[in-house]
Amino acid sequence: MQVDAIREFMRESFPQAKVDVLTVGNKGSMLRQEIDFSHLRPGGTVSGPTLMGLADAALYVAILGEIGLVALAVTTNLNINFLRKPAADRALVAECRLIKLGKVLAVGEVYLYSEGSQEPVAHVTGTYSIPPKRDGN
Amino acid sequence: MQVDAIREFMRESFPQAKVDVLTVGNKGSMLRQEIDFSHLRPGGTVSGPTLMGLADAALYVAILGEIGLVALAVTTNLNINFLRKPAADRALVAECRLIKLGKVLAVGEVYLYSEGSQEPVAHVTGTYSIPPKRDGN
Amino acid sequence: MQVDAIREFMRESFPQAKVDVLTVGNKGSMLRQEIDFSHLRPGGTVSGPTLMGLADAALYVAILGEIGLVALAVTTNLNINFLRKPAADRALVAECRLIKLGKVLAVGEVYLYSEGSQEPVAHVTGTYSIPPKRDGN
Amino acid sequence: MQVDAIREFMRESFPQAKVDVLTVGNKGSMLRQEIDFSHLRPGGTVSGPTLMGLADAALYVAILGEIGLVALAVTTNLNINFLRKPAADRALVAECRLIKLGKVLAVGEVYLYSEGSQEPVAHVTGTYSIPPKRDGN
Repeated sequence: MQVDAIREFMRESFPQAKVDVLTVGNKGSMLRQEIDFSHLRPGGTVSGPTLMGLADAALYVAILGEIGLVALAVTTNLNINFLRKPAADRALVAECRLIKLGKVLAVGEVYLYSEGSQEPVAHVTGTYSIPPKRDGN
Repeated sequence: MQVDAIREFMRESFPQAKVDVLTVGNKGSMLRQEIDFSHLRPGGTVSGPTLMGLADAALYVAILGEIGLVALAVTTNLNINFLRKPAADRALVAECRLIKLGKVLAVGEVYLYSEGSQEPVAHVTGTYSIPPKRDGN
Repeated sequence: MQVDAIREFMRESFPQAKVDVLTVGNKGSMLRQEIDFSHLRPGGTVSGPTLMGLADAALYVAILGEIGLVALAVTTNLNINFLRKPAADRALVAECRLIKLGKVLAVGEVYLYSEGSQEPVAHVTGTYSIPPKRDGN
Repeated sequence: MQVDAIREFMRESFPQAKVDVLTVGNKGSMLRQEIDFSHLRPGGTVSGPTLMGLADAALYVAILGEIGLVALAVTTNLNINFLRKPAADRALVAECRLIKLGKVLAVGEVYLYSEGSQEPVAHVTGTYSIPPKRDGN
């Protein structure tokens, strides 16, 4: 149910993105994104912003899985290392794990893969700022 | 002329991006990107991947301005700090400055602004790997 | 006076560090650190942790200059690009500039130089978490 | 034997650091560092540069374990997220894993712990530049 609620929330929030939430919970998430021509770069590879966007979404979903859909968390820092050339004809898969979930900040890391490959194409660490809970709620 | 050549190169290389090269040279670049609905996120702000993509392009253009159009440089690391909410109804402007241009690696930083504002919406540092020159050329 | 107060505060807080606060204020700081044998690495260069420590101190001083000596800010993220080999026989100089000073987070960047050189040896961006003000104070 | 050779190399190269190499190989390393007064900061916590230095050493050792002791790799980028306050009275342990080992660049990540704790105090990703092999050797 929680996965369904988060999927619905992501579809409404990000209608343009073709991101599918595979799993969420236990301080982690797994997302999958189909790759089409709009994501490609010259040389037949997936663009950097596509990779960054998927990693950012995976962090967001993992945080939503912990704090619920009410809060509006925002990314404050993202650091990405590009490791290998992604396949142009395969979906991307993101595996996210939160390594800190504080009251103010959440930090997580994400490995990105071309589907079916064991070698990550990129590694991301990101920080989200978590808004304070409102009094009276 | 160099700016024109780089503009032409960027248009051919990245036909989807609506990026305009304003200046290039002297180890820097300035780029401008129109923002439309496809770049927006819930809350009426510009998406993180849009910011990252523009910063990445600004670094690339600045490097092309120094080493020429022949080489195929690739991003190896990008670190972005999101500072303020970008305006949904204004173009983005990127100001890039290279702080190292070595034989193997180039490092630069980029400030991103909503056009007309003095306060940056994001700050990026990035590293590009520069391919070795081929013998005989 | 403010510079003197911050110098005194830094000397008491970090008695081991040989860091001198040259300037502070206007959302920036400049620090200087003498280099001795304890800071060197094989190959006659200054160690990475020495560079990182000085940059971290420069960010801290710049923040203190804005929010005063009472608060206890802590580093949450530091990203450093090593650009050139520092001179083993010259002091280090750090030039820091804050690019965001929010209620919760402050972000700044630091250029590090071997004294007398125009080319930076490293570039750092860092984020500090600023503790909330206490009621009644 | 390889671990012994790397231990000996680290002791000679970094005589000031109290770093012990626990394991190395299989694209990873584990290091341990005793904490004494010189590593502490006001508030009874371990200083940021101490954490960064240990992570940097763990990356270096993991790379040496793969490419041997001859090469002179240098750090080009280090990104650290400070997650929790380290214990002032416990040793630090670093667990490093390389996520890319290319001809030119190696990238790895490091989790830092206060000994005996399951929760990391910091997470680091770092990039090393690997020097080209010389002809004739």
